[in-house]
Amino acid sequence: MAENVVLLGFWPSSFAMRVKIALAEKGIKYESKEENLFDKSPLLLEMNPVDKKIPVLIHDGKPICESLIIIQYIDEVWHHKSPLMPSDSYLRSQARFWADYVDKNIYGIGKRIWSGKGEDQEAAKKEMIGFLKNMEAELGDKHFFGGESIGFVDVALVPFTTWFYTYETFGNLSVEAECPKLIAWAKRCSQKESVSASLADPHDIYDFALGLRMKYGIQ
Amino acid sequence: MAENVVLLGFWPSSFAMRVKIALAEKGIKYESKEENLFDKSPLLLEMNPVDKKIPVLIHDGKPICESLIIIQYIDEVWHHKSPLMPSDSYLRSQARFWADYVDKNIYGIGKRIWSGKGEDQEAAKKEMIGFLKNMEAELGDKHFFGGESIGFVDVALVPFTTWFYTYETFGNLSVEAECPKLIAWAKRCSQKESVSASLADPHDIYDFALGLRMKYGIQ
Repeated sequence: MAENVVLLGFWPSSFAMRVKIALAEKGIKYESKEENLFDKSPLLLEMNPVDKKIPVLIHDGKPICESLIIIQYIDEVWHHKSPLMPSDSYLRSQARFWADYVDKNIYGIGKRIWSGKGEDQEAAKKEMIGFLKNMEAELGDKHFFGGESIGFVDVALVPFTTWFYTYETFGNLSVEAECPKLIAWAKRCSQKESVSASLADPHDIYDFALGLRMKYGIQ
Repeated sequence: MAENVVLLGFWPSSFAMRVKIALAEKGIKYESKEENLFDKSPLLLEMNPVDKKIPVLIHDGKPICESLIIIQYIDEVWHHKSPLMPSDSYLRSQARFWADYVDKNIYGIGKRIWSGKGEDQEAAKKEMIGFLKNMEAELGDKHFFGGESIGFVDVALVPFTTWFYTYETFGNLSVEAECPKLIAWAKRCSQKESVSASLADPHDIYDFALGLRMKYGIQ
């Protein structure tokens, strides 16, 4: 019997893009349902009653929430191809650490850049560069964070590169000037069909962020 | 060759207590090194240069950081006894979801109760009760979150019960009145040697929190 896989997402969400990449890497066919986060669907409220957030993966009727947890689930269930997690326990712990580090930093810092101003925006810009430099150091001379092929940390981070143009424009900074190796890595990632087909257009993201700034009356 | 296991911890830290419980469940002998978070050791700065936080597990010289990641590592490496993660992928995703839910809520909300005042403290009290009721609903009629034996979610949550007395005293609330089944669960957990030997005394936690309030000039 064919499996039924549904993704509740929202196109500018880097968290939803992560899940799209993982599903594409595994070659899983799925139905993508776009949520309106200002008017959440009854299905989303039913599937994630605790925090009501996307993305939610619904596999044969059962929901899995939180993007990094979804990616691990996908990797464990469809383990026949494109392993995303290292097979070694220690390397797995390190991949989890760096993905968690991405989760705890980039979204919040990024938001303070594109929606903020003044001193806090300046502080956020410094934090963003520090964060990205730490990621670049972890990447080192590897092709991908996962080594020769993309893995858990690549999937966790690369969707946020679609927001770099937005951070750069509102924050007046250049990620490439600060972290050229990270930009080279992002380009390598986007040469993969699983990645390029899953990422939003950075200019569309910028328009989306601009719309949110106007909605919230940010000058 | 005997394995070398060192835990960098701090006695009032619920995150460090989690690791102690997991190590005790597995019967792993380890050296516990107490950190002074106001004067961090060179070893901590070397082992966790990115965010410089405890707990850190050092296994044969290699560091693992972030308590939930450490617990998964311990469960994967020492899989001969007391499995903490469910063996089923879907149940594993759910355990990860609830442990993550604990991580994203209780520490921050709890801090707003014991170190806060006024409207925000009242808001935090409501959030805490809402959080605990969600956990109680997830527990349902099970003996433990892990079913018949303690698992990942139990290990993630039970250390924070040592802070309940502090939340209750500074917040003027009763967890038992709001969530009697959760308190019964906490008592079942503490009947296990692995748990009772790993938890700090709630009155010592209270004195610690009181000391921090004085240090930060909170009336």
